[in-house]
Amino acid sequence: MRPIDGGVTAPAGFRAAGLHCGIKASGKPDLSLIVSDVPATAAGVFTINLAKAAPVYLCQDHLASSAGHAKAIVTNSGCANACTGPQGVADAKEMGQLTAAALGCAEHHVLVASTGVIGVNLKMDKIRAGIPQAVAALAADGGAAAARAIMTTDPFPKEFAVEVTTAQGNFRVGGMAKGSGMIEPRLATMLGYLTTDAAVDPVTLQRVVTEASRYTFNAITVDGEPSTNDCVMSMANGASGVQITDELYPALFEGFRAVAHELALGIVRGGEGATKLIAITVTGASSDPDAWMAARAIANSLLVKTAIHGGDPNWGRLVAAAGRSGAAFVLDGARVQIGSLVLFEGGRPFDERAPQAADYLAGKDLAIEVDLGTGGAHTATVWTCDLSKEYVQINAEYRT
Amino acid sequence: MRPIDGGVTAPAGFRAAGLHCGIKASGKPDLSLIVSDVPATAAGVFTINLAKAAPVYLCQDHLASSAGHAKAIVTNSGCANACTGPQGVADAKEMGQLTAAALGCAEHHVLVASTGVIGVNLKMDKIRAGIPQAVAALAADGGAAAARAIMTTDPFPKEFAVEVTTAQGNFRVGGMAKGSGMIEPRLATMLGYLTTDAAVDPVTLQRVVTEASRYTFNAITVDGEPSTNDCVMSMANGASGVQITDELYPALFEGFRAVAHELALGIVRGGEGATKLIAITVTGASSDPDAWMAARAIANSLLVKTAIHGGDPNWGRLVAAAGRSGAAFVLDGARVQIGSLVLFEGGRPFDERAPQAADYLAGKDLAIEVDLGTGGAHTATVWTCDLSKEYVQINAEYRT
Repeated sequence: MRPIDGGVTAPAGFRAAGLHCGIKASGKPDLSLIVSDVPATAAGVFTINLAKAAPVYLCQDHLASSAGHAKAIVTNSGCANACTGPQGVADAKEMGQLTAAALGCAEHHVLVASTGVIGVNLKMDKIRAGIPQAVAALAADGGAAAARAIMTTDPFPKEFAVEVTTAQGNFRVGGMAKGSGMIEPRLATMLGYLTTDAAVDPVTLQRVVTEASRYTFNAITVDGEPSTNDCVMSMANGASGVQITDELYPALFEGFRAVAHELALGIVRGGEGATKLIAITVTGASSDPDAWMAARAIANSLLVKTAIHGGDPNWGRLVAAAGRSGAAFVLDGARVQIGSLVLFEGGRPFDERAPQAADYLAGKDLAIEVDLGTGGAHTATVWTCDLSKEYVQINAEYRT
Repeated sequence: MRPIDGGVTAPAGFRAAGLHCGIKASGKPDLSLIVSDVPATAAGVFTINLAKAAPVYLCQDHLASSAGHAKAIVTNSGCANACTGPQGVADAKEMGQLTAAALGCAEHHVLVASTGVIGVNLKMDKIRAGIPQAVAALAADGGAAAARAIMTTDPFPKEFAVEVTTAQGNFRVGGMAKGSGMIEPRLATMLGYLTTDAAVDPVTLQRVVTEASRYTFNAITVDGEPSTNDCVMSMANGASGVQITDELYPALFEGFRAVAHELALGIVRGGEGATKLIAITVTGASSDPDAWMAARAIANSLLVKTAIHGGDPNWGRLVAAAGRSGAAFVLDGARVQIGSLVLFEGGRPFDERAPQAADYLAGKDLAIEVDLGTGGAHTATVWTCDLSKEYVQINAEYRT
């Protein structure tokens, strides 16, 4: 497997487009379209938030009625179409119908996503004018434009692709994602799109999207806020001629995981106000849920995130967050490591190492490990970012 | 019941002192002592954090071995004596022994608390010199000095007292508290001290402290971080001559609740970087735990707290936080009210009211109500504050 240029259109048989149709006042791109030349198998994982946006329900309906097939994914940014009542449901449906009509495909072969402000209705006149333009602009090198058109507060677009080599031939996996705030995907995620030219049946595609998301999109947090619109959607069109069998599943998984990993870390690096990417690894947990619970508690701790922002090796806040996480925790057995420096172990601090740890924290790409001290062998890694004044500014001014 | 001047020394038979013994480099007060003239009944509720500080264990031991009696509570600020290993345990014990010796009372009649930076050992030379000075400074009007000496990042001291009138005579309840960051007490709290000159047996005192804390100290959050040192301790010395019977328990409860309520709200008003006090009330929950879970999720949501900081009536973030809280939630039945303005109901927004809601949010004392839409009758109120750039600054620079 090797990284290759591009994103969702890196796999064969996919075209994409991105353009400004008029939803964003800024004039930035706000309509994105991905199309498979042939009907593809399709799968998705969706937000666990009970206040789901209208397009989330529509995608779940379409994937069910098409038995896991799709030809296109249309997305607008600048408006989440969430909490918009019956009008929002009708708008999401019409957005799919317009795309299906422009492409000449079945309505249930179009998946629809929206991202942006909650509680505002879609400007349907802009969508109606934009969709035919997007179809006209579809191109085999349109992935980059599509990735830009799904951005909201993202500071940069996220796309990635790999080529996987197998004894049965090569196939590609590509992807794009957006997300910067309201990010703590759970059993689901922000907006993520994964394409492959491998031939994958719908059940296997659902499985690989779910499993690849678990340690990637589901293992990141910016602010502990699972959104109303989170989803990861995938299309597999078989254009490479490689049929995914049980034997090839591990290669498919590694391809999906590699692309999802890169996109997920990109979301955290581009988190609202973020200046550092931090891998929080919990070890010595007495169960798998405990390891995740503690890692998430630490990764979402405002005190941990602000200390790291300030370059302060304040291991006491790491211990405090682990201790109140709900996971089993034994203080005397616990250990805190910042980079390669152990700052707390055997019940006592090693503060003479604090200056070295502060130097390490001046970097941009950080690893922190907390052993819960139970003697258990379970571990988990969650990626998070620091909390800066810019996060507050962005979110205090989001709609003003 | 009526509010009266003062704090922990407002009830008869209590003296207190607060002074600078040398722990804080700033020269601010850092040693606090409360003494009952006679051995009092005593009770406490303590942090559920599994990384408990040494003095927390000591207090639990002393309350057990004294069967719920104490004569004094000694507290230092500027150092939490948490995660300090065997030396920390020895230091907490010595701090109690020194106080007992200076007062001429039994060792287990002294309760000990510490607050400040985690993972740093106490400067015991300063404590050894300070305790006799504090005993010498004890005064019946020393409550205000004691309240100042427990502060860390608190912008102002918190003390309050009431006089309760009953058919059997009057008694008083007084209290003081500290806390500004690392605040989301659960089944416990920050540092809180409640005194009364009612005569209360130890079991009843424990009950009234626990019950009064539930809707006060346990219903506040600044940053969702239960600390390693949280505790509320209480002494009842009987000096008023009023014996608390079953008949008088409601009067005792109301007195404790009134004092605890005022102190708890003071902590939130003085939360790190806070500019607004916000009461988050959840209604329409299908169970009591659901109501609390949803209220806490909203009250700790960074997006809610930053939106309110910016004066943005972004009800979508309230719905999103409720929807991902884990509580049962029905979007079509949900309602969001900011002040007296309904901004979302029956599945649709009322954005025409947003300008009025923005005017309301310019205030300092705010009430927000979210109905979960399940038709259930359970409710909960949690008090929180907004999240400002100053919070980030305070916590990025705490040790530097």
